[in-house]
Amino acid sequence: MTNNADKGLLIVLSGPSGVGKGTVCSMLRKLAPELVYSVSATTRSPRAGEVDGVNYFFKTKEQFRSMIERDELLEWAEYVGNYYGTPRSFVNDTIRAGKDIILEIEVQGAMKVKQKFPEGVFIFLMPPSLGELKNRIVTRGTETDDSIRSRMSVAVDEIKLLEHYDYAVVNDQVESACARIRSIITAEHCRRERIMPYVNSWMEEVR
Amino acid sequence: MTNNADKGLLIVLSGPSGVGKGTVCSMLRKLAPELVYSVSATTRSPRAGEVDGVNYFFKTKEQFRSMIERDELLEWAEYVGNYYGTPRSFVNDTIRAGKDIILEIEVQGAMKVKQKFPEGVFIFLMPPSLGELKNRIVTRGTETDDSIRSRMSVAVDEIKLLEHYDYAVVNDQVESACARIRSIITAEHCRRERIMPYVNSWMEEVR
Repeated sequence: MTNNADKGLLIVLSGPSGVGKGTVCSMLRKLAPELVYSVSATTRSPRAGEVDGVNYFFKTKEQFRSMIERDELLEWAEYVGNYYGTPRSFVNDTIRAGKDIILEIEVQGAMKVKQKFPEGVFIFLMPPSLGELKNRIVTRGTETDDSIRSRMSVAVDEIKLLEHYDYAVVNDQVESACARIRSIITAEHCRRERIMPYVNSWMEEVR
Repeated sequence: MTNNADKGLLIVLSGPSGVGKGTVCSMLRKLAPELVYSVSATTRSPRAGEVDGVNYFFKTKEQFRSMIERDELLEWAEYVGNYYGTPRSFVNDTIRAGKDIILEIEVQGAMKVKQKFPEGVFIFLMPPSLGELKNRIVTRGTETDDSIRSRMSVAVDEIKLLEHYDYAVVNDQVESACARIRSIITAEHCRRERIMPYVNSWMEEVR
């Protein structure tokens, strides 16, 4: 037995908009090639170079609606006239194969995933401070004072959702945040509940 | 804020006799010099080269008994006519200074520590299999079949105590076990409960 003998984990990486989820995930793809990244289903058309099953699972609206009806999505949402969602089967197949899968998602989606997949490991990416989050929002684009205020107010509401997560990783530096996420995954594989079944089977042997 | 902004952790490293706690701890001292190692109190005489406060806190029996009475020990035991115990103050001073402290201890002692310090992180070092544990006990010395059987029976009883621990680390290779322990410490610093107070204070600010 090793600490990676069993099923994989679903790691849900979320956090307020502007915190740097995308940047952290891109770095993680380079640093941790052993992790699988969740592939979304969408009804939008493929763009040049996008491959079905790699960038997205491309679906018709009819197909997508029937996935919703059959409860085949861990979460879904409509955005600018198209559907986007997380197929449950891709997640399940990956963890059954003993691999860990990462799902990067905004906070509302993460809360829906938690309802359908509470055994996931929920990681909240945090800004080092509210001031720092404001800096990141300001330097991102050419926002007006009003839109910055409204984005900050949304971010503050999103940060309140931290209470529903297992872990908070401060994104002070991208590399440090990635190292913390990898440590969390390793530690979760060491949780007593995951090793207990092996020990119980040993006890059967010696009885 | 970073993920190491707050108090340190008490990490209790235990496991059945013969599993290699001492070897893992020695390697950890080399790999993780940032960790503090708990210093025991004892009534036995210092040996050549042993320094008070470094190898042990050397106490008279009278001093030790008064530490017991004043509840100044997280656990204690008598062994071959001498007392040994874990001073609570050394642990508390270390974590208050923001440093993590490791206590390597046999399973009975760990269970006593858990009663007095339930907020500790309890890690159980596991053999990869019962067969492997037997090999380690056999190759250790010139034990008779009877004593091997009796040591194995004790080890099996000790392994049952895993259910009281937070984590199980399989000691398949010393370096891997050390890496898992370090990941657990990092992950514990990222637990939501440890970050939540900062976020609550932010929310006070913006209100």
